[in-house]
Amino acid sequence: MKLFATLLTIIAATSLPLSAFAAPGCIECHEKETPAAVVQWKESAHAKAGIGCEKCHGTDHDKMLRGEAKVTIKVCAPCHKKAAEDHLASRHSLALQAGWGCTRKLPSRKPGECRFCHREGDETAKIKAQCARFLKQSPEMQEIGCNYCHSVATACDSCHSKHSTSLKIVRDPNSCAKCHMGPDHPQWEMWQTSLHGTLNQSAGRSVGPDCQTCHMPRGSHNVSGGLTMNSGGVPSPAKEAEPERQKMLKICAECHAPTFGKKELERGDAVRAQSLAMLKEAERIVWELNDLGLLDPMPAQRPEHPLSGAKLVTDAQMLYEDTSHIERLFFKMKKYDYARTIKGAYHQNPAYTHWYGNAEMKMDLIDIKAEAARLKERKGTAPTLTAEEELTLLKKKFDRGVLSAEQYSAEKAKVLERVK
Amino acid sequence: MKLFATLLTIIAATSLPLSAFAAPGCIECHEKETPAAVVQWKESAHAKAGIGCEKCHGTDHDKMLRGEAKVTIKVCAPCHKKAAEDHLASRHSLALQAGWGCTRKLPSRKPGECRFCHREGDETAKIKAQCARFLKQSPEMQEIGCNYCHSVATACDSCHSKHSTSLKIVRDPNSCAKCHMGPDHPQWEMWQTSLHGTLNQSAGRSVGPDCQTCHMPRGSHNVSGGLTMNSGGVPSPAKEAEPERQKMLKICAECHAPTFGKKELERGDAVRAQSLAMLKEAERIVWELNDLGLLDPMPAQRPEHPLSGAKLVTDAQMLYEDTSHIERLFFKMKKYDYARTIKGAYHQNPAYTHWYGNAEMKMDLIDIKAEAARLKERKGTAPTLTAEEELTLLKKKFDRGVLSAEQYSAEKAKVLERVK
Amino acid sequence: MKLFATLLTIIAATSLPLSAFAAPGCIECHEKETPAAVVQWKESAHAKAGIGCEKCHGTDHDKMLRGEAKVTIKVCAPCHKKAAEDHLASRHSLALQAGWGCTRKLPSRKPGECRFCHREGDETAKIKAQCARFLKQSPEMQEIGCNYCHSVATACDSCHSKHSTSLKIVRDPNSCAKCHMGPDHPQWEMWQTSLHGTLNQSAGRSVGPDCQTCHMPRGSHNVSGGLTMNSGGVPSPAKEAEPERQKMLKICAECHAPTFGKKELERGDAVRAQSLAMLKEAERIVWELNDLGLLDPMPAQRPEHPLSGAKLVTDAQMLYEDTSHIERLFFKMKKYDYARTIKGAYHQNPAYTHWYGNAEMKMDLIDIKAEAARLKERKGTAPTLTAEEELTLLKKKFDRGVLSAEQYSAEKAKVLERVK
Repeated sequence: MKLFATLLTIIAATSLPLSAFAAPGCIECHEKETPAAVVQWKESAHAKAGIGCEKCHGTDHDKMLRGEAKVTIKVCAPCHKKAAEDHLASRHSLALQAGWGCTRKLPSRKPGECRFCHREGDETAKIKAQCARFLKQSPEMQEIGCNYCHSVATACDSCHSKHSTSLKIVRDPNSCAKCHMGPDHPQWEMWQTSLHGTLNQSAGRSVGPDCQTCHMPRGSHNVSGGLTMNSGGVPSPAKEAEPERQKMLKICAECHAPTFGKKELERGDAVRAQSLAMLKEAERIVWELNDLGLLDPMPAQRPEHPLSGAKLVTDAQMLYEDTSHIERLFFKMKKYDYARTIKGAYHQNPAYTHWYGNAEMKMDLIDIKAEAARLKERKGTAPTLTAEEELTLLKKKFDRGVLSAEQYSAEKAKVLERVK
Repeated sequence: MKLFATLLTIIAATSLPLSAFAAPGCIECHEKETPAAVVQWKESAHAKAGIGCEKCHGTDHDKMLRGEAKVTIKVCAPCHKKAAEDHLASRHSLALQAGWGCTRKLPSRKPGECRFCHREGDETAKIKAQCARFLKQSPEMQEIGCNYCHSVATACDSCHSKHSTSLKIVRDPNSCAKCHMGPDHPQWEMWQTSLHGTLNQSAGRSVGPDCQTCHMPRGSHNVSGGLTMNSGGVPSPAKEAEPERQKMLKICAECHAPTFGKKELERGDAVRAQSLAMLKEAERIVWELNDLGLLDPMPAQRPEHPLSGAKLVTDAQMLYEDTSHIERLFFKMKKYDYARTIKGAYHQNPAYTHWYGNAEMKMDLIDIKAEAARLKERKGTAPTLTAEEELTLLKKKFDRGVLSAEQYSAEKAKVLERVK
Repeated sequence: MKLFATLLTIIAATSLPLSAFAAPGCIECHEKETPAAVVQWKESAHAKAGIGCEKCHGTDHDKMLRGEAKVTIKVCAPCHKKAAEDHLASRHSLALQAGWGCTRKLPSRKPGECRFCHREGDETAKIKAQCARFLKQSPEMQEIGCNYCHSVATACDSCHSKHSTSLKIVRDPNSCAKCHMGPDHPQWEMWQTSLHGTLNQSAGRSVGPDCQTCHMPRGSHNVSGGLTMNSGGVPSPAKEAEPERQKMLKICAECHAPTFGKKELERGDAVRAQSLAMLKEAERIVWELNDLGLLDPMPAQRPEHPLSGAKLVTDAQMLYEDTSHIERLFFKMKKYDYARTIKGAYHQNPAYTHWYGNAEMKMDLIDIKAEAARLKERKGTAPTLTAEEELTLLKKKFDRGVLSAEQYSAEKAKVLERVK
């Protein structure tokens, strides 16, 4: 089969001029207009297999110029079935809904954009994915700052070069680095300086595994296999997590003893659990200030959150503009430092787990407590609240489910005891 | 011509001992004293063309030892005319004036140093370049922290290895990385993780362009071609920017459709414009605090700015020592985060544009507003100023040109109306 | 001798099956259980020299499974004498005592752990090394966040791959990067973007030296040769520093003129001295607040420091959890920014010396002063203290040795003069 394909390729590449596979005129003009595209196509497996321009782009040039003939996964899927299926089963296929767009109430929002999440005239999102269309942002920032990565949902050329079919390119961790880097999820950086990554660089892929080795085993395009938490670092329920853990352990076992892989991943779980506890401690401080009306500005005094309105938001839809200073400190702790700690642990990178992650979280907590003390003192509520204020605060905590009915009663009793 | 040169090289390299091209004794002694220099020279195009030590260093050994026989662009230019001309036309040639030295009022300032910017006995700078001789710093920090990069103005060996003529070295982006990196202008880092940079690393220079491809087209040493803003990110006037834009678009068109390049660069312009607006918002807050006398310490309470005296400075000469906390927050926003946002956008790097840049700017603004609120409250000026204070504030804004005559009248009327 | 070894290797590799060198059954089972280990061993110099599993691991399989047959330096030393001796003479051999473990008062502390620093039943540390067993941390964070690097003391496989004997791997700077990176000591990053590092990447090791060139000359495993300060950046006494300086200068002289190397390293010394002065200025501010009882929380109001009790600690044992905000600012300044400044200078990296280091230190100082002003004002002690408070403060400074007896008298006199 492979031989046959090779023969076909040789025949295709030698017996016919390449331009025979392109609609008349494409090559001649595009050698001048988009020279790199033509060069790369000519060297591609597509060209060698006789797949010309029109197969992917169609023949309606006006449509192409209007940007309406984009080569999305719909174009690629008929030939690359397995890859497309894997991709659609992975989190990569959710990226569009999760991150597409960051504009808020701007006149420049284009009419058709809403369709990504909503049916015509329907305000409910048509899919369960969260929508991050939250920030005051221009369409240009949306394009480069959001869509550039989040278009991976339907754009195969997020990873694959547009006209090159080079596997060398797409199997290189650099291909992943473009998006999986930076303060919020430096997977590329933490792999690069882990034992796996450093061995990869000094001794090659067979000794030091790369992104693809563990996250795209045997070329699978389902990059979510083996993950036991969501993209925000919240652990999956055990019954969802367990089968994924087994998948990853099988990959570990290709090099390591099964007990070794198990121990390494369980260490990651433990680091995640303790880090999450620290994060929750900080979150409670922010909520208490909100209950006391001490955030500055309070949610009611600033532009509304587009999903939740004039309320404090500290979940995955948390904003990082127009909030109070302490919320911004919590944003850093959650989105940057918590992510580094746990992803660092699962990637066996000591510096990311500890210094970039855990140590920063500990210092974030110091900063958050200091700011909370300042805010309380400012309004004269420190060191003590009035009994009435304390009772209101306890009620709010109970309403939010932070206190159980029992805890609520007990705390209330203590306050009443004090003022008696 | 090229053949002739090659022949000459072969003859030179084979028929004569290399030391024949060096002044008697140089090689013998320097093989022991500076072994790497000799090894690299022996393998260099210079050695092969019969260019020995004395051609660049002269023959006065005492002068060399006193550091007075430095091999600057003056030595290189007679043979490398085009490169030197290009370089002198570029911003690289301004680097000396813009950054040379960071010492302030220190006894260790060497007498001759002033000549870089001033004529003997003349306090006015002899060139239009800004002078950053501002910080309390030792000559040693000046050397490694400032001059190491800023000496590029006249030192060809900032990029070219001293004795090696290897083009491989100097055409490598690593050659640029030494200076074009770090918190204030991470061009190397943002290129490295852009599509261009990642393709360069996985598929080579012909697929993924590097610094030199776009900024030194066809080997030009004018690295400023195609830039439409100054080094602080302030847009050039349209009539200066337009011809530069055209130059860059021509480079884009070597691979991409002209419409594509245009759109990409215009997206960068838009990101720059919106980021500049955010920066200006923060700057106005700092100035208002200055007008209200609420900076802590106020400019009059701290060492004077060497150019502007006891005044607030937020332009390119802004200091990052002995200022108030809010100014230091603004410094980070302007010098680090604004730079990352716009340079990230022009280099098509989503993580630098958004997370390292835009998101940080938004959080800087939160921090600056929080600090402003604290400072106002501290002096009891929040939530309201007295009418008299407000009128003084408006006057200062008018004097600074922040308010037009009309706006000033209108605002003044409003205050007077209120107190009537 | 070398020929003989080669012959032996060839004979070993060709005439006998490799499994002959392993205890019966090891290979057969471990090809399935730990495939990478077997592959790497088969290609190793060990395998070629007939050194099988049992030589390093022993034959007690139960012991191995209980983790009690670890291959530490004790196993390697008998064959690799020189390397082991060098290593034990270096700071690498102190890593265990300096960093092992970060758990504090946790029930999960294992009984045997104490033995690393203490004799049975003896609270005094048996060696002079400092013990960092300070933080509230789980054993899992301790493993990945602390021990992963600090186990270098006795674990040769911190740098050498476990079963591969590839010199290519272990001579690669990536091998060092795993630990010598990150916010607290980014030696790898600063080398990578220094002139040495960039030349290494574009022109190879013979032109651009790497970690090993200067810190492991001629393969020496004493990585501390040539260092003139301790790992916290405190200069060694002259009589200890001088012979180390001479060692490093000899290495510089392999490429550079002796005067050049001397000047470069002395510049590093000067940068270190001025940075240390800036650090001390900040430290004095923190101590003054402590003397005034203005830290929030004060040491007495928070969990005790495990070594020093309810006291302020700003030395190498300084914590970064449960402290006040200003101490955490000082921690960043000392542990991150001071380290970057001085290590950047010694590695000739302008961006790390200045922007990542010196500029951050200057801004840290602004932040620390601003926070000090806030804390003083908060308690109404700003702008002036009462005479009594000032006298108490002076007494505390005198007791701590910050003021000499003369200075103390003079300052006291001034205060008394004022209130007269």
